[in-house]
Amino acid sequence: MDTINLRQLLQRYKSGYSLEQAFYTSPEVFDAEWEAIFRKNWLYAGNTAQVKEPGDYFLYQLRNDSVIIIRGNDGAIYAHYNTCTHRGSAICLQDSGHVSKFICPYHQWVFDKDGSLLNARMMPDDFCKEEYNLRPAKVKVVGGLIFICLANDAPAFSPIENSLAPYLKPYAISKAKVACIKNYKLTANWKLVAENFRECYHCGGAHPEYCKAVIGANLREDVEELTIDRQKNWSAKGLQTKLVEITGGTTTYAIRYPLRPGVESYSVDGKKISIPMGLHKDHDAGVVGLVNYPNFWMDAVSDYVWTMKVTPVDAFTTDVEFCWLVDEKAEEGKDYTLERLTEFWEITGAQDGALCENNFKGILSNAYRPGPYAPVEDQVINFVDWCVNELKKA
Amino acid sequence: MDTINLRQLLQRYKSGYSLEQAFYTSPEVFDAEWEAIFRKNWLYAGNTAQVKEPGDYFLYQLRNDSVIIIRGNDGAIYAHYNTCTHRGSAICLQDSGHVSKFICPYHQWVFDKDGSLLNARMMPDDFCKEEYNLRPAKVKVVGGLIFICLANDAPAFSPIENSLAPYLKPYAISKAKVACIKNYKLTANWKLVAENFRECYHCGGAHPEYCKAVIGANLREDVEELTIDRQKNWSAKGLQTKLVEITGGTTTYAIRYPLRPGVESYSVDGKKISIPMGLHKDHDAGVVGLVNYPNFWMDAVSDYVWTMKVTPVDAFTTDVEFCWLVDEKAEEGKDYTLERLTEFWEITGAQDGALCENNFKGILSNAYRPGPYAPVEDQVINFVDWCVNELKKA
Amino acid sequence: MDTINLRQLLQRYKSGYSLEQAFYTSPEVFDAEWEAIFRKNWLYAGNTAQVKEPGDYFLYQLRNDSVIIIRGNDGAIYAHYNTCTHRGSAICLQDSGHVSKFICPYHQWVFDKDGSLLNARMMPDDFCKEEYNLRPAKVKVVGGLIFICLANDAPAFSPIENSLAPYLKPYAISKAKVACIKNYKLTANWKLVAENFRECYHCGGAHPEYCKAVIGANLREDVEELTIDRQKNWSAKGLQTKLVEITGGTTTYAIRYPLRPGVESYSVDGKKISIPMGLHKDHDAGVVGLVNYPNFWMDAVSDYVWTMKVTPVDAFTTDVEFCWLVDEKAEEGKDYTLERLTEFWEITGAQDGALCENNFKGILSNAYRPGPYAPVEDQVINFVDWCVNELKKA
Repeated sequence: MDTINLRQLLQRYKSGYSLEQAFYTSPEVFDAEWEAIFRKNWLYAGNTAQVKEPGDYFLYQLRNDSVIIIRGNDGAIYAHYNTCTHRGSAICLQDSGHVSKFICPYHQWVFDKDGSLLNARMMPDDFCKEEYNLRPAKVKVVGGLIFICLANDAPAFSPIENSLAPYLKPYAISKAKVACIKNYKLTANWKLVAENFRECYHCGGAHPEYCKAVIGANLREDVEELTIDRQKNWSAKGLQTKLVEITGGTTTYAIRYPLRPGVESYSVDGKKISIPMGLHKDHDAGVVGLVNYPNFWMDAVSDYVWTMKVTPVDAFTTDVEFCWLVDEKAEEGKDYTLERLTEFWEITGAQDGALCENNFKGILSNAYRPGPYAPVEDQVINFVDWCVNELKKA
Repeated sequence: MDTINLRQLLQRYKSGYSLEQAFYTSPEVFDAEWEAIFRKNWLYAGNTAQVKEPGDYFLYQLRNDSVIIIRGNDGAIYAHYNTCTHRGSAICLQDSGHVSKFICPYHQWVFDKDGSLLNARMMPDDFCKEEYNLRPAKVKVVGGLIFICLANDAPAFSPIENSLAPYLKPYAISKAKVACIKNYKLTANWKLVAENFRECYHCGGAHPEYCKAVIGANLREDVEELTIDRQKNWSAKGLQTKLVEITGGTTTYAIRYPLRPGVESYSVDGKKISIPMGLHKDHDAGVVGLVNYPNFWMDAVSDYVWTMKVTPVDAFTTDVEFCWLVDEKAEEGKDYTLERLTEFWEITGAQDGALCENNFKGILSNAYRPGPYAPVEDQVINFVDWCVNELKKA
Repeated sequence: MDTINLRQLLQRYKSGYSLEQAFYTSPEVFDAEWEAIFRKNWLYAGNTAQVKEPGDYFLYQLRNDSVIIIRGNDGAIYAHYNTCTHRGSAICLQDSGHVSKFICPYHQWVFDKDGSLLNARMMPDDFCKEEYNLRPAKVKVVGGLIFICLANDAPAFSPIENSLAPYLKPYAISKAKVACIKNYKLTANWKLVAENFRECYHCGGAHPEYCKAVIGANLREDVEELTIDRQKNWSAKGLQTKLVEITGGTTTYAIRYPLRPGVESYSVDGKKISIPMGLHKDHDAGVVGLVNYPNFWMDAVSDYVWTMKVTPVDAFTTDVEFCWLVDEKAEEGKDYTLERLTEFWEITGAQDGALCENNFKGILSNAYRPGPYAPVEDQVINFVDWCVNELKKA
């Protein structure tokens, strides 16, 4: 295969058209993206409801790096690379769990939850324990969402925090109940998954369930009047309605929009799924749609939060994690069922997964050429522009 | 791994000896062959009996390129790359089927069977539809066989046409019935599969069923007198008997040879398989053996046609498709059974598949050296010479 | 990925610390090791009890090279590359078996057990058979263990022979019974498997069964007095006790050490497994531990021999073969059961396999850095130093 000339690829990029094939298929471009995008920016890792007690942890696999997200004795969230400072063994072997201390399974070196090396048996007297703490990644938390950064110089987190906090507050995620987490593996470049979730040009043809729940998703219904009316109502209740768009230096998009009148939740039958979540008192909060480039999507309704974490594996493969959260007091079987809770996004997600995989298959063709995005795909253009800019910066 | 110096490899090639290891195992040589051989020459794609009605289509996967072969409204055969001109999605998702129009599953752009873009909804007024037709590949048909070419400058098709047409005519393939198509994946370089099907030095040891049907296949029986006698008989019936050999500029081999006296068809018991096919009136037409480099083999008897399509996947993997055709009027269960129809080539093909895979395993060894072909392997030498020449030309 | 600068990697190596990541993960380093270590040194292939009769053979797969180990008509052991000198086909298709002659399955060329070409049918008169014998690898046998070397200039075998012979003699392996052979595939660099089997720093935490059988394996028990006492006893019986260490130019380690008092064999319950093996008269011979870099480990007790053959597949994958040998007269069901014979090393081996795979997972992390070996890991340092030296020599 020809070596990719990334500089020329970037120069040839024409905003408004889909990317050249190599952006979606070349391992070299993928490596460059990994460095310029995934190892530079804040990445959504999970939420604090997954680690309620000190010692609760889960792993986030980022290519070859397994990162341990754990709540410390002080209640703070820590992120450590999952590799022992002795001979490199993985320390946590389960995807999630609880530890009182980390004990490496190979030679039993012992680390505290904050990563400090507590004991390294049979090492010589001059061994300096302080030099062999677990290696950390940076961590920030906003409204119960945990973001990590693999860079030495992490970008400022405040723009993300300021945009997300007011939207997240009513959901009280840190107290919420993690009802379900599911993982999917797609044979498609990660950007195709991201692009798919930034436009509704495909919704009318592909998502009957989604279009039934969301007025205007088919792009054939006028929702302006309804939206203005609902926004007044939401503001009166103290719910955030201010649109946040992704501009020059930012990575966050946030919006609140209405469900179809009469629809109470993201559900196939339009009826509510669970009891109102967090501070919500009714099923009338519409949809909160949040995006943070490069890997975070969230769609929340009055009674549940759905998050999507997009993690590239290689140029051809993308891991997608869905997580469903409900109110801390919601009881399974009584207030909600797992089947109804997950049905809407399992159906819609499977439709999107197939579209992404088909998109990728076609792009593999030698006959593929960048095509023109439709005007309604402007958010896709925004995302692709952002990717190209991140690569140009690096 | 060392980078392959293809030029030196080609210079070192010694006709009469098998190729050096790198020709069979190197991804770089494979890429060079793909460009010099598979993207330059006419490739057998399938037959017209697979697409009898306008809108009938099937796909041919050539590495990353999926090509749609479809019959148009005008009855002609078209070949389109299966990638939407909007954002690249694959358009046809099934290996074969029927469409009235192509509708891209992603954003519902609509294309006619001939590839023209009929509708791209919500695109701006200045959008020029004519620039976004499906991208075509070249197509030719001879005697019901469909050949495509991925090159911009396709070589002349007339030598192939002139050689094949007289042999194909009596089978009336365009009207025939596709009784069965089966696909096999071999762990072997594609050239080993081609070499295997160009010699019968191995037949005596490997193919008892084949040798029982074909007199002389074991290379121990003298068939000259019988052949001369049969040729007179075939000529008298108007059946083509003229041997076509592959020379300097050509790619086609064609021959008619006798079955063992008393044997009526390619069958394990020597008895007929179905009713005479097409224009044939009896079970006495012998075997028509056709080859077209690089990917087509056909062995036809009086009552059925068997074709083999050889498609490289990578240096280590080869797809092989067998297709069995019978007369349009033959009824399954009455005139033939699928089991008897496919038995002979399933057995013989499995024997050959194992030989090819074993051959490839041994060639992987560092101790492998090009070995001398036997005089009876002269057609293998012809094939290998042809491959080397195609690479030298490019 | 960056091209690895092997020279700089080797220069940066600091004895006493684990290797840099690239030594465990880079395909380029792996290729260099294959040439400098595996294609230069004597490799354990199997034992003579596997090929008792002329014509008995087994295959040893070394990356792309399949090597046939066969006993010849003269009783000697031969090693041939498993590739026909005609067109390269693999000749032996089963992992082990018996042949009177080699007959290539493709075109029936016939070779004798010693590799000479006996018959190549239909070749021209001037064909020189002597030039087309099977290509040989070098073979040596010591005490029933078969070693091969893929190099043209094999290193002297006498240091290995002199070290191993006295330890092997009492087991009479050439007459022994091969009770069981099992193969495992580990997702770990081969050196991690070798390192694991060169230290007992992990034994206390990982191997309860092993520590129950072997006094001192937990590194918390003083065994000096016991060992001195036992050595006098072993010497009196004529059993070798002289420690062989791996120094500058050698590859062999050999030791005899005691089982826990009261323990009769490597068994989970500490009781004997079978009748005394070979020349042994009792269950009191302790453990004979043998190592030969790069691929051979053996732990033998009075009543059985267990060998481990470590074969790299690629930088990420390692094949491990366990073989259990018992006395020629031992009858399954009466003198031993397969379940009890294999239980101890299946349990211990599975524990080690998991440790190696976890070690490898953690080393894949970008946060992995070479860590300090503990003083009790001095034999690991010896092994890693040896690997680095072999690479530096080449």
